[in-house]
Amino acid sequence: MARIQKKIRQERLKERLQTSPFSTDEDLAEYLQVSVQTIRLDRLELGIPELRERIKQMAEEARNKLQAIASTDVIGELIDLEVGKSGISIMTVTADMVLEKTQVARAHYIFAQANSLALAVVDAPAAVTGVANIKYKVPVRVGEKLVAKAEVVRKRGNKYFIWVKTRNDMEEVFRAKFIMVSLEHEGR
Amino acid sequence: MARIQKKIRQERLKERLQTSPFSTDEDLAEYLQVSVQTIRLDRLELGIPELRERIKQMAEEARNKLQAIASTDVIGELIDLEVGKSGISIMTVTADMVLEKTQVARAHYIFAQANSLALAVVDAPAAVTGVANIKYKVPVRVGEKLVAKAEVVRKRGNKYFIWVKTRNDMEEVFRAKFIMVSLEHEGR
Repeated sequence: MARIQKKIRQERLKERLQTSPFSTDEDLAEYLQVSVQTIRLDRLELGIPELRERIKQMAEEARNKLQAIASTDVIGELIDLEVGKSGISIMTVTADMVLEKTQVARAHYIFAQANSLALAVVDAPAAVTGVANIKYKVPVRVGEKLVAKAEVVRKRGNKYFIWVKTRNDMEEVFRAKFIMVSLEHEGR
Repeated sequence: MARIQKKIRQERLKERLQTSPFSTDEDLAEYLQVSVQTIRLDRLELGIPELRERIKQMAEEARNKLQAIASTDVIGELIDLEVGKSGISIMTVTADMVLEKTQVARAHYIFAQANSLALAVVDAPAAVTGVANIKYKVPVRVGEKLVAKAEVVRKRGNKYFIWVKTRNDMEEVFRAKFIMVSLEHEGR
C-alpha cells in the first residue's frame, strides 16, 4: 500500500513540476500533504534536482538562445526564452533596489528587468528600445520575487511590438508595451 | 582702451553665465573671442568659480529642496529644482552604462535619470511612479552628457503629470510623460 501511495505521489510530483517549475520543496510538501523530507527523498529517487539547480539549468538553456542582447546585460535571471516569441525572467527585490523614503522598489529596476527581457526576445543580432508605455500597478518591496513574462505580439519591418507583464507571488504589479527596433548591421 | 574692453568683456561674461550656466571656460573663450587664460583671469577677478564648482553649488541648493525622494536616490546630478514646478539634472554616460552588443546606453539608465527627476519635482513628502509613456529618439553613447529637464504640466488630486525631456549636446534624445502619485502618509 505504502509503495503504491509513493508511486502515485511521485507521479503527482512530476506533474506538478511540469506546470509549476518554480515550486520549492516547501510548496511541494504542502501541495502533496507530506513532509519536506519526503519531497527531498522523492526528488532524489526521481533524479530531479533542487529548485536552485533546476533554475540554473533553465537559465543555461535560455542564455544559449540569446541574440539581441549579451547575457550579462539581462537584468534578473532569464529562465525561458523562445527568440522571436516569448521569454521569462525572475528578479528578487533586494534592499539596494528600494527608495529610501518609501521602501518601495525603484521604478527603473522593474523597468530594467522588463526592458532587457524585451530585448532578449527580439529575433535579430542587435536592437534598441524605441517606445515604452508602462504602468506600475502595485508597489513592490524587499524580498518579493518578480516574474516577468514577455510576448512578441506583432512584428512590422524592423519593429517588434512586445508586451511584458510582471507579477509577484500574488498579482500583476507592472506591465509594459515596448516597441523594440532591430538594427540591420550588428554593432551598428 | 584695454581697460574699457576688459570691463565690457567681463560684463558679457557675467551675462553669458546667466543664460548658459554650464559653459566651460573653452566655451566662454570661443564666445568672447579671447584665450582660455583670459577667461580664467576674468573669472578670478569677478569671483566666479570654475564650472565644476558652480555645478556643485547649484547641486547643493537643489538638494536642499528635495522632498519626495532622498538625494542619494536621484540618478544623475540634480542641479536645479523648483519643487512642484520643474527640475534639471545632468548625467554623463559611462562605459558601464552601455549595452555590450551595440555600445548604446541601456534604456533603463536614461529612464532612471528622468524618472528620479520626475520624483524630485513632486511637491509631497513621498511619491511613487504610476504611468510612464516614453520615447527613445536617438541612441546615446559613452561620454555623452545628458541634460534632463522636468516640468509639472498638470496636477489633479494626488496625481502629478510630469514631462521630462533629455538632450545631449546636439539634440533631444529622449522624452517621457510620467504620472507620479503622491502618497498621503509618509513612508507608504
